[in-house]
Amino acid sequence: MSERILAGTLTDTNIDQEVLLKGWVQKRRDLGGLIFIDLRDKSGLVQIVFNPDNSKEALEVAEKIRSEYVVEISGVVVSRDESTINPLMETGKIEVMASAITILNKAKTPPFAIQDETDVSEDLRLKYRYLDLRRAPLQETFKLRHKTTQAIHKFLDGEGFLEMETPILTKSTPEGARDYLVPSRVHPGEFYALPQSPQLFKQLIMMSGFEKYYQIARCFRDEDLRADRQPEFTQIDIETSFMTSDEIMEMTERMMQQVVKEVKQIDIELPLPRMPYDEAMDRFGSDKPDTRFGLELIHVSEILAKSTFKVFQGAIESGGKVALLNVKGEAANFSRKEIDKLTDFVKVYNAKGLAWLKVEGDELKGPIAKFITEEEKQGLVTRADATDGDLLLFVADKNAVVYDSLGALRLKLGKQLNLIDESKFNFLWVTDWPLLEYDEALGRYFAAHHPFTSPVIGDMDKLEADPGSVRANAYDLVLNGYELGGGSIRNHKKEQQDQMFKVLGFSEEEAKEQFGFLLEALEFGAPPHGGVALGLDRMIMLLAGRTNLRDTILFPKTASASDLLTDAPSEVSDAQLQELAIQLAKVND
Amino acid sequence: MSERILAGTLTDTNIDQEVLLKGWVQKRRDLGGLIFIDLRDKSGLVQIVFNPDNSKEALEVAEKIRSEYVVEISGVVVSRDESTINPLMETGKIEVMASAITILNKAKTPPFAIQDETDVSEDLRLKYRYLDLRRAPLQETFKLRHKTTQAIHKFLDGEGFLEMETPILTKSTPEGARDYLVPSRVHPGEFYALPQSPQLFKQLIMMSGFEKYYQIARCFRDEDLRADRQPEFTQIDIETSFMTSDEIMEMTERMMQQVVKEVKQIDIELPLPRMPYDEAMDRFGSDKPDTRFGLELIHVSEILAKSTFKVFQGAIESGGKVALLNVKGEAANFSRKEIDKLTDFVKVYNAKGLAWLKVEGDELKGPIAKFITEEEKQGLVTRADATDGDLLLFVADKNAVVYDSLGALRLKLGKQLNLIDESKFNFLWVTDWPLLEYDEALGRYFAAHHPFTSPVIGDMDKLEADPGSVRANAYDLVLNGYELGGGSIRNHKKEQQDQMFKVLGFSEEEAKEQFGFLLEALEFGAPPHGGVALGLDRMIMLLAGRTNLRDTILFPKTASASDLLTDAPSEVSDAQLQELAIQLAKVND
Repeated sequence: MSERILAGTLTDTNIDQEVLLKGWVQKRRDLGGLIFIDLRDKSGLVQIVFNPDNSKEALEVAEKIRSEYVVEISGVVVSRDESTINPLMETGKIEVMASAITILNKAKTPPFAIQDETDVSEDLRLKYRYLDLRRAPLQETFKLRHKTTQAIHKFLDGEGFLEMETPILTKSTPEGARDYLVPSRVHPGEFYALPQSPQLFKQLIMMSGFEKYYQIARCFRDEDLRADRQPEFTQIDIETSFMTSDEIMEMTERMMQQVVKEVKQIDIELPLPRMPYDEAMDRFGSDKPDTRFGLELIHVSEILAKSTFKVFQGAIESGGKVALLNVKGEAANFSRKEIDKLTDFVKVYNAKGLAWLKVEGDELKGPIAKFITEEEKQGLVTRADATDGDLLLFVADKNAVVYDSLGALRLKLGKQLNLIDESKFNFLWVTDWPLLEYDEALGRYFAAHHPFTSPVIGDMDKLEADPGSVRANAYDLVLNGYELGGGSIRNHKKEQQDQMFKVLGFSEEEAKEQFGFLLEALEFGAPPHGGVALGLDRMIMLLAGRTNLRDTILFPKTASASDLLTDAPSEVSDAQLQELAIQLAKVND
Repeated sequence: MSERILAGTLTDTNIDQEVLLKGWVQKRRDLGGLIFIDLRDKSGLVQIVFNPDNSKEALEVAEKIRSEYVVEISGVVVSRDESTINPLMETGKIEVMASAITILNKAKTPPFAIQDETDVSEDLRLKYRYLDLRRAPLQETFKLRHKTTQAIHKFLDGEGFLEMETPILTKSTPEGARDYLVPSRVHPGEFYALPQSPQLFKQLIMMSGFEKYYQIARCFRDEDLRADRQPEFTQIDIETSFMTSDEIMEMTERMMQQVVKEVKQIDIELPLPRMPYDEAMDRFGSDKPDTRFGLELIHVSEILAKSTFKVFQGAIESGGKVALLNVKGEAANFSRKEIDKLTDFVKVYNAKGLAWLKVEGDELKGPIAKFITEEEKQGLVTRADATDGDLLLFVADKNAVVYDSLGALRLKLGKQLNLIDESKFNFLWVTDWPLLEYDEALGRYFAAHHPFTSPVIGDMDKLEADPGSVRANAYDLVLNGYELGGGSIRNHKKEQQDQMFKVLGFSEEEAKEQFGFLLEALEFGAPPHGGVALGLDRMIMLLAGRTNLRDTILFPKTASASDLLTDAPSEVSDAQLQELAIQLAKVND
């Protein structure tokens, strides 16, 4: 007997060939004494015909098989009649006349059909993940994920990077998100933490003289989950010594170019565009702008500086601003009720309201039109390039609220009005980030990225005098409005890192307690270094054109961090807890 | 200025070239107004010369630099005088005349010198791991590790495998070693477990229809550590559908052939030898025989069946055996005191003693010689191929003790007498393992590999009647006496897996409680499947010719599972424990 051949690879070049196939029964149809099955394996589908003239025994077995049975089939490839050719099937020009079939395993009726589209609940799909994964769109997604990681291995190996593994059982460093903890049995009362990222270890690798490190690294964050977050996720983690931020960005974009070429056969033009953080906020109201469409924010504070409309006046006088979106030609399509919906939408982003004007001929119409002077009208029309039929949507508020709400509204309208070319892969570097963010409630600065990010060289001396104005030597990579990841040049001098901790409000003892090993390592010849980390799961989601992050992770967890397939987390035995010297906390009623 | 060039790549083809170098000061020597430094980067070393005629400024800076300073140097490559050529240095024919130097970072005096050989304590090396890793032997080990993983990615990609990630936060399944647990914050009182291996997930991947999976997978075992164990370790994890054990072994050995070729430039001949478990035990007293040398066990129970020597008699009558090692030509080199040392050695393996005879001419001499009849003597001499000057070392005991003690003694003598050709890479498959092992103390069978291993087809019907005699469809790969890993064909039919759990003493409820998801998955069209897992850390240790497993792991833990660099595990805050709804157990005085 010949070797096994993959179902989806059969073409009319195989006609008259004896083949051995193994796989799953996708479906069975009985048609006037004949049985047809679609046989599925990892490569695709092929139609098998059982015919009493060919083999009575095989036909008898075929009568017993049902969907998802695992079978081994021998037969001959034949061409289909012109009338039965299936143009929707890759192998639709041929079929296999079965001479023998063996049942390798039976299958109960699955709780949902294995087909491309499904409308069963996600919980059921996750409980039977091994059935869900048999569906072609998920099979394709994980092939794409494999191709992506292979392209990355190949590229980084070619650039002289070493694939290296950092520990999963690490030290808890409370700065940042919440750690997952692991009680130690050998050291009762002590805990390991699962790494939120290999940040400190990759810096230590640079201090170890390896110069070029990468890892497809698992990271863990015990955070309240949102739709696009998972308790464990994967990042492409890269660190280099002696490279500038320009060099790191340049190399990262060549890597992404190679990935997109490999998995999508699309050529990305380099260099990728770059945009300072301030410009991204001003133009798109977002630090991760989707540049596949316009509808940019239009700033009109100066024009409305003397507005008699209380809302505009109030925002400007208290240091905020007024900005608008010009929804070209859509005035007629937005009733007052439609606009009310948009108002509700921006309120989620803390905007107090949404003012609007419609352009009719050369008039501005709407409830606030009466507050707009002729001069203001001219100014607005010119600045917004407003013409007959346009809809102008205003938010006047604190700067952050204006950006957030109009940025979100822009994205919503972009989708709603089909302004987005879904075939595009628009990469963008966002640069010149603020190094620090001030938390008003806590009255202290926080690291906008993480405390190891260095300031841009020119801003270093402002670190203590004017921390809020210091820009970070950091860069984020954005794809189609999603943050793929980012990186920075790190502090490689002890004094600089000490100063950073000071600005962040760490006492010397606290800094030493948490990061003493890093501070010490900086004193023994730490090279200038920096790197980048890109979220693999999200990258796959965008490359595969999917919208659910869980579809990119083989065995994902739900929003409550449960694995519905294996039932994790679960209770453990008292003996296990005793060995770990922990006990469950008493519940206070 | 030219681009940075790597120090170790400079040769006499670079003479007269202006170069820019960046790296660490390996050492500085002042010699009559000149300063020489060895500059080190990831590629190696080159000598730099600072000369007042060339640049006074550079010389002045060079006077300030010390070992492990990070510097940037510009200069011109020149050939060395014949008399100063250093044949021990890769770049020893040339040196760089420095025209400029910049200090990129300073360094305190390291607690130990960065040199190939070191005799400082391992604890100090682990605390300053980033300094230890700068040493050339460790740099080389991690380059070799990278090359190994790249060769594996490339090979498995070429074979149609998909690189896939299984979860780290999984369900605790107490069978096997002790789990590391992770308390859940969202589900108080419940825990995740870190995976001891991706075993169940890789089987589920087969049930998901992917057919070919691999992962360089992190695994976790909370066991009492020995020298060659780490709480987290890495395995090359492979699973396939529809392949036989022969096919899996054949593919695995091609992978190893490619790895050894890639990293050692050595051709391994295929197919690799195979040996049934019983033969390995009989010949080498080990299930992972080092076949680089002889000194095999010689079984002499039949010859001594009627021995009047109580120790031999007793062992044979109670179902045990007598076996010996013939240490050829070494009789004169082993005094009674030397033999006493060997006796102490085998006692560690529970042997009650070590009987011995020396061959002198055609006489057997030694304390037990008086118990040996002429017929027994002839039998022994013939069976052991004993000639003048040989030393015969006997153990008579229960079979397991004879194998363990003589197997260990064989290895000890192999090393002691330099019988081992260290340049060899002797791979060996050990096959036909027992499926089950009986634990006398607990009065039940345990899975010799794991409970998902299938019996060989011919032995299936003995599973309930005579479990101890059932062989597993399993195979271990041995390299130079170390177990690299192993695998098996799994139970893919529900009934078969049920039966296995029954033999292992699981009630139906227990099996369902722990492995219900797997048992259920077996009912929905599980394909025949099997795989293999190879320990990467140990593989690197053997390929790199190292003897300490910790040298193959970037940031290893000590025997008490501590990370001396970051000080993990460590205490955490009460707030963290409260959030996780756990508390430390009260210590009972």
